[in-house]
Amino acid sequence: MPPFGHTHELRVRYAETDAMGIVWHGNYLAYFEAARTEAMRATGLPSYRELEEAGIMMPVVETGTVHHAPARYDDLLRIRVRVAEPPRARIRFDYEVTRDEIKIADGFTTLAFMDAQTRRPCRPPKAFQTFFA
Amino acid sequence: MPPFGHTHELRVRYAETDAMGIVWHGNYLAYFEAARTEAMRATGLPSYRELEEAGIMMPVVETGTVHHAPARYDDLLRIRVRVAEPPRARIRFDYEVTRDEIKIADGFTTLAFMDAQTRRPCRPPKAFQTFFA
Amino acid sequence: MPPFGHTHELRVRYAETDAMGIVWHGNYLAYFEAARTEAMRATGLPSYRELEEAGIMMPVVETGTVHHAPARYDDLLRIRVRVAEPPRARIRFDYEVTRDEIKIADGFTTLAFMDAQTRRPCRPPKAFQTFFA
Amino acid sequence: MPPFGHTHELRVRYAETDAMGIVWHGNYLAYFEAARTEAMRATGLPSYRELEEAGIMMPVVETGTVHHAPARYDDLLRIRVRVAEPPRARIRFDYEVTRDEIKIADGFTTLAFMDAQTRRPCRPPKAFQTFFA
Repeated sequence: MPPFGHTHELRVRYAETDAMGIVWHGNYLAYFEAARTEAMRATGLPSYRELEEAGIMMPVVETGTVHHAPARYDDLLRIRVRVAEPPRARIRFDYEVTRDEIKIADGFTTLAFMDAQTRRPCRPPKAFQTFFA
Repeated sequence: MPPFGHTHELRVRYAETDAMGIVWHGNYLAYFEAARTEAMRATGLPSYRELEEAGIMMPVVETGTVHHAPARYDDLLRIRVRVAEPPRARIRFDYEVTRDEIKIADGFTTLAFMDAQTRRPCRPPKAFQTFFA
Repeated sequence: MPPFGHTHELRVRYAETDAMGIVWHGNYLAYFEAARTEAMRATGLPSYRELEEAGIMMPVVETGTVHHAPARYDDLLRIRVRVAEPPRARIRFDYEVTRDEIKIADGFTTLAFMDAQTRRPCRPPKAFQTFFA
Repeated sequence: MPPFGHTHELRVRYAETDAMGIVWHGNYLAYFEAARTEAMRATGLPSYRELEEAGIMMPVVETGTVHHAPARYDDLLRIRVRVAEPPRARIRFDYEVTRDEIKIADGFTTLAFMDAQTRRPCRPPKAFQTFFA
């Protein structure tokens, strides 16, 4: 089976630009997050909101971004999310941001599974392990 | 006694600018908040962090801003905070932002006192009522 | 003719929440802005992006927000935008934010028309004056 | 000569936290940026603001962050910035964020030198090459 993927579209807000006239680089992490939320919803597994309500948090433990071309206010961006490997104590999401056929940025975020009560690492829910296996 | 006042200085970050080359207007609410935190610390009363640890939250219930002149990356801004009236169920802070002698913006925020457990309105701590009386 | 109105929907991002577990108050100004962008596009008039490309900027000169109930991560918010009066040197947009039938916040932003070259106030484009008359 | 280093201190704003009660991960890129601005000022070379006024921009082309422990509202963070290698077409800054003696995060950002007029890559100013050699 090919790795799970999902594409999310969003429009750049003025608030997200900086004085160079382009999207401020840190905002790509918010774009990744929005795309990841929708990717998780698209699996049919518990959404991230439901996970938190069930007592599991997923703090971000590592990130990386590479910027190929600038994006500007009102650009319509597509963010492709993939999970290439089955999650264990951590899960890694990879992202590719494009506008039309132009590659804008790519990157990844690694998240841990954490028990919200104890704030200690925990295993991912069974359904996650099965889905991404 | 004159109303309580405190001045906080901060430097504009690149991330806080927008494609017009100026500070994005919504960031003034973050500047107000940073200045309010320092103003509360300067009273010698429990800091806002200590208030939250003691189970009191202060959600923002109303804000207003007026923009007189743009601020830019790396500008050193002074934010004057005042509390003009004794707090009851709510407390209002007024702000004036200047760079050198130029008025950049002014505004206000009104915050409620809320019991963090019940998420219901509550009275301000006694020390607050006395201090600002 | 009733005043011009438009409704925009958006989903709260995790990045937009704060340690109270709710949307940080300043982010409503970003929501207003996103809704205003779509409202302007919906008029069929030049979009805000096209306005800027034509040399007209619209800096925000005044804002106000009132917060009725908290919004949380993953909430789907509806933002109703209205322009109640024909624009002159300035244009005022009013906003109402709801989740299901619950009123979350309302507010307004007043924007000036500015010549991007000279950075001086200017008249709104003719089409604007006609549209909102 | 040891590599150039500079330490910047800042206090976490409420706006920078998220619903987990900790600093939202993307905000570390804003912290890195604030620290980098002060590090460049500390060299005695033209500040980043002066560089931009002289027609050179430094867009971010790559970033990475690793998160070791959470930071919270009102924490006083120290950000150690280093430039380990002489800049060529690009310059890499490394960062380490601590609170007291606890390591919170580390990361890096790589920036290009770009002619603001043509938006094409350019060489770093001579003074930069000499300083970091």
